[in-house]
Amino acid sequence: MQEKRTLPQKKLINKERLIQMKPFMDEEFLLSTGTARQLYHNYAAKMPVVDYHCHVSPAEIAQNRQFDNITQAWLGGDHYKWRAMRSNGVPEALITGCASDREKFDAWAATMPRLIGNPLYHWTHLELKRYFGVDVPLSPATAEEIWRACNEKLKEPGMSVRGIIDRSRVTVICTTDDPADDLGYHEAIAADPSCKVKVYPAFRPDRVLAIEKADFADYLKKLGQAADIEISSFEALCEALRRRIKFFAEHGCKASDHGLGKIVCIPATEQEADAFLKKRLAGETLSEREEHAFRTAVFCALAPEYARYNIVMQIHFGVVRNVNTRKFQALGPDTGFDTIAPYGCAEGLIALLDQLERKNALPRTVLYSLSPCDSELIGSAIGAFQNEGIGCKVQLGAGWWFNDTKTGMIKQLTDYANLSVLGNFIGMLTDSRSFLSYTRHEYFRRILCELIGSWVENGEYPADMAALKEIIEGISYNNTMSYFGFEA
Amino acid sequence: MQEKRTLPQKKLINKERLIQMKPFMDEEFLLSTGTARQLYHNYAAKMPVVDYHCHVSPAEIAQNRQFDNITQAWLGGDHYKWRAMRSNGVPEALITGCASDREKFDAWAATMPRLIGNPLYHWTHLELKRYFGVDVPLSPATAEEIWRACNEKLKEPGMSVRGIIDRSRVTVICTTDDPADDLGYHEAIAADPSCKVKVYPAFRPDRVLAIEKADFADYLKKLGQAADIEISSFEALCEALRRRIKFFAEHGCKASDHGLGKIVCIPATEQEADAFLKKRLAGETLSEREEHAFRTAVFCALAPEYARYNIVMQIHFGVVRNVNTRKFQALGPDTGFDTIAPYGCAEGLIALLDQLERKNALPRTVLYSLSPCDSELIGSAIGAFQNEGIGCKVQLGAGWWFNDTKTGMIKQLTDYANLSVLGNFIGMLTDSRSFLSYTRHEYFRRILCELIGSWVENGEYPADMAALKEIIEGISYNNTMSYFGFEA
Amino acid sequence: MQEKRTLPQKKLINKERLIQMKPFMDEEFLLSTGTARQLYHNYAAKMPVVDYHCHVSPAEIAQNRQFDNITQAWLGGDHYKWRAMRSNGVPEALITGCASDREKFDAWAATMPRLIGNPLYHWTHLELKRYFGVDVPLSPATAEEIWRACNEKLKEPGMSVRGIIDRSRVTVICTTDDPADDLGYHEAIAADPSCKVKVYPAFRPDRVLAIEKADFADYLKKLGQAADIEISSFEALCEALRRRIKFFAEHGCKASDHGLGKIVCIPATEQEADAFLKKRLAGETLSEREEHAFRTAVFCALAPEYARYNIVMQIHFGVVRNVNTRKFQALGPDTGFDTIAPYGCAEGLIALLDQLERKNALPRTVLYSLSPCDSELIGSAIGAFQNEGIGCKVQLGAGWWFNDTKTGMIKQLTDYANLSVLGNFIGMLTDSRSFLSYTRHEYFRRILCELIGSWVENGEYPADMAALKEIIEGISYNNTMSYFGFEA
Repeated sequence: MQEKRTLPQKKLINKERLIQMKPFMDEEFLLSTGTARQLYHNYAAKMPVVDYHCHVSPAEIAQNRQFDNITQAWLGGDHYKWRAMRSNGVPEALITGCASDREKFDAWAATMPRLIGNPLYHWTHLELKRYFGVDVPLSPATAEEIWRACNEKLKEPGMSVRGIIDRSRVTVICTTDDPADDLGYHEAIAADPSCKVKVYPAFRPDRVLAIEKADFADYLKKLGQAADIEISSFEALCEALRRRIKFFAEHGCKASDHGLGKIVCIPATEQEADAFLKKRLAGETLSEREEHAFRTAVFCALAPEYARYNIVMQIHFGVVRNVNTRKFQALGPDTGFDTIAPYGCAEGLIALLDQLERKNALPRTVLYSLSPCDSELIGSAIGAFQNEGIGCKVQLGAGWWFNDTKTGMIKQLTDYANLSVLGNFIGMLTDSRSFLSYTRHEYFRRILCELIGSWVENGEYPADMAALKEIIEGISYNNTMSYFGFEA
Repeated sequence: MQEKRTLPQKKLINKERLIQMKPFMDEEFLLSTGTARQLYHNYAAKMPVVDYHCHVSPAEIAQNRQFDNITQAWLGGDHYKWRAMRSNGVPEALITGCASDREKFDAWAATMPRLIGNPLYHWTHLELKRYFGVDVPLSPATAEEIWRACNEKLKEPGMSVRGIIDRSRVTVICTTDDPADDLGYHEAIAADPSCKVKVYPAFRPDRVLAIEKADFADYLKKLGQAADIEISSFEALCEALRRRIKFFAEHGCKASDHGLGKIVCIPATEQEADAFLKKRLAGETLSEREEHAFRTAVFCALAPEYARYNIVMQIHFGVVRNVNTRKFQALGPDTGFDTIAPYGCAEGLIALLDQLERKNALPRTVLYSLSPCDSELIGSAIGAFQNEGIGCKVQLGAGWWFNDTKTGMIKQLTDYANLSVLGNFIGMLTDSRSFLSYTRHEYFRRILCELIGSWVENGEYPADMAALKEIIEGISYNNTMSYFGFEA
Repeated sequence: MQEKRTLPQKKLINKERLIQMKPFMDEEFLLSTGTARQLYHNYAAKMPVVDYHCHVSPAEIAQNRQFDNITQAWLGGDHYKWRAMRSNGVPEALITGCASDREKFDAWAATMPRLIGNPLYHWTHLELKRYFGVDVPLSPATAEEIWRACNEKLKEPGMSVRGIIDRSRVTVICTTDDPADDLGYHEAIAADPSCKVKVYPAFRPDRVLAIEKADFADYLKKLGQAADIEISSFEALCEALRRRIKFFAEHGCKASDHGLGKIVCIPATEQEADAFLKKRLAGETLSEREEHAFRTAVFCALAPEYARYNIVMQIHFGVVRNVNTRKFQALGPDTGFDTIAPYGCAEGLIALLDQLERKNALPRTVLYSLSPCDSELIGSAIGAFQNEGIGCKVQLGAGWWFNDTKTGMIKQLTDYANLSVLGNFIGMLTDSRSFLSYTRHEYFRRILCELIGSWVENGEYPADMAALKEIIEGISYNNTMSYFGFEA
């Protein structure tokens, strides 16, 4: 009963192999190697931020809102945090209800320590460090002190919305806007010389695609008014969209966005699309097939306009929204009751891209699925629709929502590298409703530098700092600027 | 042809970066950092075990079975091992056939060295170490000695079923039981003051859900007899289930379980469910849609009863059973011929949860899918159905069956952390038919401590030992106790 | 506001934990531990290569082609590289168009640095090192020098096709061939005593399965001529296939291959299959269901013949080909426009295996899906169809195409280990059109040794070098030889 071992094994070596731990979220947070640290501090950290997809309010930028307290800034509209609090058993009154801002903050502080491994843990503490100079972990024990420190800080003029944007070195923000929006706040911002950041609208015609919804006809009226045309036919709808895209383009729009559950591509003639539209406007319900055919026709109408104005087409899919009927009835949409679709949603993706490419009308496109399992198929699909003159005209988008985690980012970057040309990736966005979320760019850049640094350290890529600089600065900032055509 | 390198690279450093290896499965098995070791030895290892889901025989506990040899204890009903042996080309006679126990043991020993990287390799050696004091790897060279050592050990009174349970520090066991079961063995165990462990039945009405099976009508007769009611209508079926749940609850039942292939939610009225039931009892075959509607109605009947008695509702789905027809005909079910479903099985998951939540009848729920791709969607779905007063009322279950591996556990824990509140996770179970499987809790706890330890060492969570103690002890034991409402 | 920390954390330790980096792709490439290095250098690296699945041209082996320049050898037919170049914005003229070989090489060199993290980066540099003695990274700065060095080298007789094969220590090659092929080149190679490598045909009846294609009837005429039988019935088709399989077997064929999009198993009688075939030959279009039923019938006809001649049945599925219609019309098939299917393709996998197993006609089978999400389900499914006397009669194939990456290989090996018996895995293949791709075996073996080495170093498997030698040599070479029945 002799154990065969040809390599020495001594019990005492166990201690020797232990490596001392890193301090909690210090300057080298997530950076474990010399190369990662060089890449981050010398290149990534020095780049400004372009936030090409988010949900912040242009009104608050125009008005340069100042927050009364940290709960307003943090918990006011952040359904990520709400969901985490509910998952910790916090009563709704302390989340979206009538409790005081301080009580809500305390409920959040009590949830924090149990969120070990969750991106909210890191986002929270990055925000506390970078904006509020707070270095201690948030917990019930520290809640009082942090509440006071943050609220004190929020009184400073440099902590207004624009102050936060400026100190975050954000040069461009793309908000997310309805085609019927008058873009009044965007005009106000553009006309205000004191506002340094460029704020552009993004064209998001979700309500045009949502032909199944009860308010579809009402919405088309609103859209028709905005476009100065009565929308009673598919051609009129297309004309309205063309006018509004032109209007958005005139306001600097460089990005569009589309939220879909399932992508199903059912090519339809304009006559058919017209018939579906009229049927729906007459109050009838379309079959699922007819709805998808209508949506396909809308995409075919939108895409050449995007291509014409150099507007990037983003598509977010794979989500099921408002799945908890009781809570939806009580709290409405965007309150933390959406999930990854429990079925495949990418079925029509390739056919849709091909449909547009056949018409020579495929604009620059960024694809985001909420299902992590779609990442590799998107990564392979984009490779079939690239075009000369631009690196990765079709992109696998950054890890979205439930995938916006350390592991999700590593997977997205690895899939991008494996299946496409990582050097052409346009990088990170916040997708946030909060002005304190710009540290998510820092979080992403650290993870990017750690990953690429590990390849270099492991002998998988040469330690060619010129090449690495170009890649890191590209993914951090430069690729995005040139892909969207923003002016520096 | 000059290589650009700004960082020094010397060939000789390669040796320096080598770290000496760890001994095979020693006390620090899977624990590579100081924090991981502290967390494991100071907290995790000290907690007792609650095995809230398994398939051990209550009869063997009641009778306090003593095994004649290690083959009986190990290979008697373990289809994981059978499958591995078949995959190594072992003839069926040496697996489930008429070969001697020693021959079967030798076939298993010969399979072992090739199972590198398989959890069976670790489970086997943990069991040999913890229960038999055997420290050498099992192989043909050591088979004789290990066979003798184990069989000698098995003669000790401390190695009876209850002896094993006691030395494993198991405080609670939930078996898995048919609603028609008379729970006689559970009564015997409860009445036996010499039995220290609490053994509760779990309510598993799979045969009620399996309306498609040939023996469905026969089973309903049996169930009706147990419930003292003739089941000729859906209402009678519901009444029978209510009575049996009450009976189970009176025997300490805190858990139910449901095995499904695909979750499809098709709401049906009680009238419709009644019609489907009667059609089936009349010997007709239902459509797939009718079957799913019937199952949905059964869930809607069961859930409020579970909620009433504080019984946790577990759902296991995503499996296809008995896929090898020839082997099924020869060997019957549960013999190692089940697989991960080759199609999506979660389609109706969200709708089912919403259906129950709308009726305010969603009990505490634990969801397990056999498909590793479902992990993130479950992780996101549970977040939409949490409720106040309890941390993670709806849980993403521990890695199940083919996912019950080191990598599977790390993924489950990471998904839980990313998508929910890991601090509220109820942790590990054995899901085993063997009384030697309690070391799977040790295996899990080591992996848990290594993962959380790596976050702390990496500066991703503060080295706050009080907070970490609560999390580790919670996931190891305390969360489970309070979630199920077991008494300490 | 005191931070609770029980473990010491000093800022200065950060530097100490840094480990010096490895040189770029040196002899220890991908090997980070002593065990990994021992396993690779002592065992894996010493084994010859058997390339049991590839797409090289038997004509070029028979004629012992000598390449004029590196573009011919590298970029002539490699749609992996084409796709990467397109993703970098390279114009088609510089990819498949009329640009000069040097211009194409330069376009490839310019793409290279941005391919960080992509397997092409490693493949390229392994090939440069092993075949051309080039040690500098390819980039625009080094393109001129590398172009010259490679082209000079390619003039050497040892760099003919057979020279490359010999220096790569390849003992067996299985090409991929149409059933109607006359195998003339294989005969020429077999008759040439100067050719040391064994080159066998593989039987790939894709055009028989592709009953939906426009040229199906024409193809059956060609097949009929090769088999000397008029194919006007299903029975005649089966007879033709039987004759061609016999013919292939007489030429040393040990492998077959089948490319499918979706696996759907719809059992059909021979009468039904006959009716579908005749309907199609009459120019009618079959329903999708009829097509799948026909394919199922063809598989049922092929499998027993494979079993009879000990021919391994490979199935590749989960791909959608030629998804970019414009590019397909311009460039034809196999030019880099294929993707992972955006929907599940394995639905009928288990039923198909069972169908064949019921007839006792399941041959040795290797399953490859293009979807990484299928890996675990295949890993579990194979366990239900193993048979005595052979280790892993049904295999989870090596990471295919978009999964043929470092991360893809690690996942495939881990899934194999978790779900089956890794010691029985038949290992790597090139699947390549290029004779320079044999270094992919080296790449795979390094990854294999690193993974298994990490388990040993981590105390998860004993440092039993005899057992490890058998496993490493088995997966590198020996398992394949015995699984396919090649003669050493």
